[in-house]
Amino acid sequence: MQSPLTLKLSAFVALSETDLQTLERYHRRRRIFQANHELIHEGQKNHSAFILAEGWACSFKVLPDGERQIVDFQLPGDFLGLRSILFRTADHSTEAVTRIEASEVLATDIFDSFAEAPRLATAVLWAASRDEAMVVEHLVNLGRRSAEERMAHFLLELGARLKLVGIGNKTGFDCPLTQYHLADVLGLSAVHVNRVLRQMREQGLVTFQKGRVTFDDFAGLVRLADFDTDYLDQDGPLLR
Amino acid sequence: MQSPLTLKLSAFVALSETDLQTLERYHRRRRIFQANHELIHEGQKNHSAFILAEGWACSFKVLPDGERQIVDFQLPGDFLGLRSILFRTADHSTEAVTRIEASEVLATDIFDSFAEAPRLATAVLWAASRDEAMVVEHLVNLGRRSAEERMAHFLLELGARLKLVGIGNKTGFDCPLTQYHLADVLGLSAVHVNRVLRQMREQGLVTFQKGRVTFDDFAGLVRLADFDTDYLDQDGPLLR
Repeated sequence: MQSPLTLKLSAFVALSETDLQTLERYHRRRRIFQANHELIHEGQKNHSAFILAEGWACSFKVLPDGERQIVDFQLPGDFLGLRSILFRTADHSTEAVTRIEASEVLATDIFDSFAEAPRLATAVLWAASRDEAMVVEHLVNLGRRSAEERMAHFLLELGARLKLVGIGNKTGFDCPLTQYHLADVLGLSAVHVNRVLRQMREQGLVTFQKGRVTFDDFAGLVRLADFDTDYLDQDGPLLR
Repeated sequence: MQSPLTLKLSAFVALSETDLQTLERYHRRRRIFQANHELIHEGQKNHSAFILAEGWACSFKVLPDGERQIVDFQLPGDFLGLRSILFRTADHSTEAVTRIEASEVLATDIFDSFAEAPRLATAVLWAASRDEAMVVEHLVNLGRRSAEERMAHFLLELGARLKLVGIGNKTGFDCPLTQYHLADVLGLSAVHVNRVLRQMREQGLVTFQKGRVTFDDFAGLVRLADFDTDYLDQDGPLLR
């Protein structure tokens, strides 16, 4: 069975035997963390990155007044803290949302793999670029979209990302996030999140109940959010 | 004389002769564009990327209602549209703010250079990660910082980035941006931008007049914005 990371990178590049063997070595140090464990702390030096195999994580920054801005959630196949192992100092924190399984990756693992399998370097740069494209969409959410548009865009994005790694489909997905997670990523209060979700359920667009997001009107949500999957670039493989 | 890109990447990695020669080849196709020329259009396929040598550019997304969210400004040494040449479709637009000089780079230039100089792959991944870290800070600006904190953080960031490529210093920098640019990147109205800049000038923090940003109280601005250059990771070289 292919790892979620392999599934994801395959959307960009047809991986060769060498690429796959090199990728395999990213998965030597398997770790398990409980929910809420902080894997990477902002300001930390010499930490590792991780590749998520199971469960959900989130990356965030805490402000001097204690407020938190969630930058993104990480799903199976995503890197945790990849950006930060290239930097001297981690520029953000990452914690487990659920119990997670993840492989620990050192900066040297990444550098060595690039020398052995340059196509993999391109694939990792693609994955990092895709992460950046998502942060850009979250920026547009905060800067220019209404609360309902933000919610629709964010839930559609999660659905599309999960579908790529074989979890979830057009009808919906299992979702461990709380109203506080949604508030901290969408720049809303928890009360506002509740009201927006209730309105969208009453309009027959989407239902988020009992840990499951159900797309009641997928096309309607796409229209509301002006959602276009181009920035996820997952209609795979481009590079053969 | 070193190109701004070489100066920038040298903050991360001590470039070898091979790395430098490979980098040199990114600069074969030099182009000149007038101010306001759109180099990359959102939704465009098969376009090129560019490396900025002189002048300022900006990347942005336009929403269905015509509103614009500026994601970032690009300065000498920065890639324009690097993310998008890895994708099938450009996920954002890029235009010249001033007259610019830039080298056109194709996806194959990038892929070939990674095969020849794997350390360069790491350096380009670092540069892309740094771009992402800046977008994250702009996200935090919109989500969690006051108008004054946003302005202070943004101007300090521009100053630090320009200093890295040998333009500007702790006293300030020449800045071609209008109040509309500032409004579109900071999520404020142009009127609000003017008011905030006036207040900050009267408080003796910063003056933006006649195309020049002057840091009147650098330490005070850093305190106001809680500005920490760690996310720019430019105290290099880390990788020798």
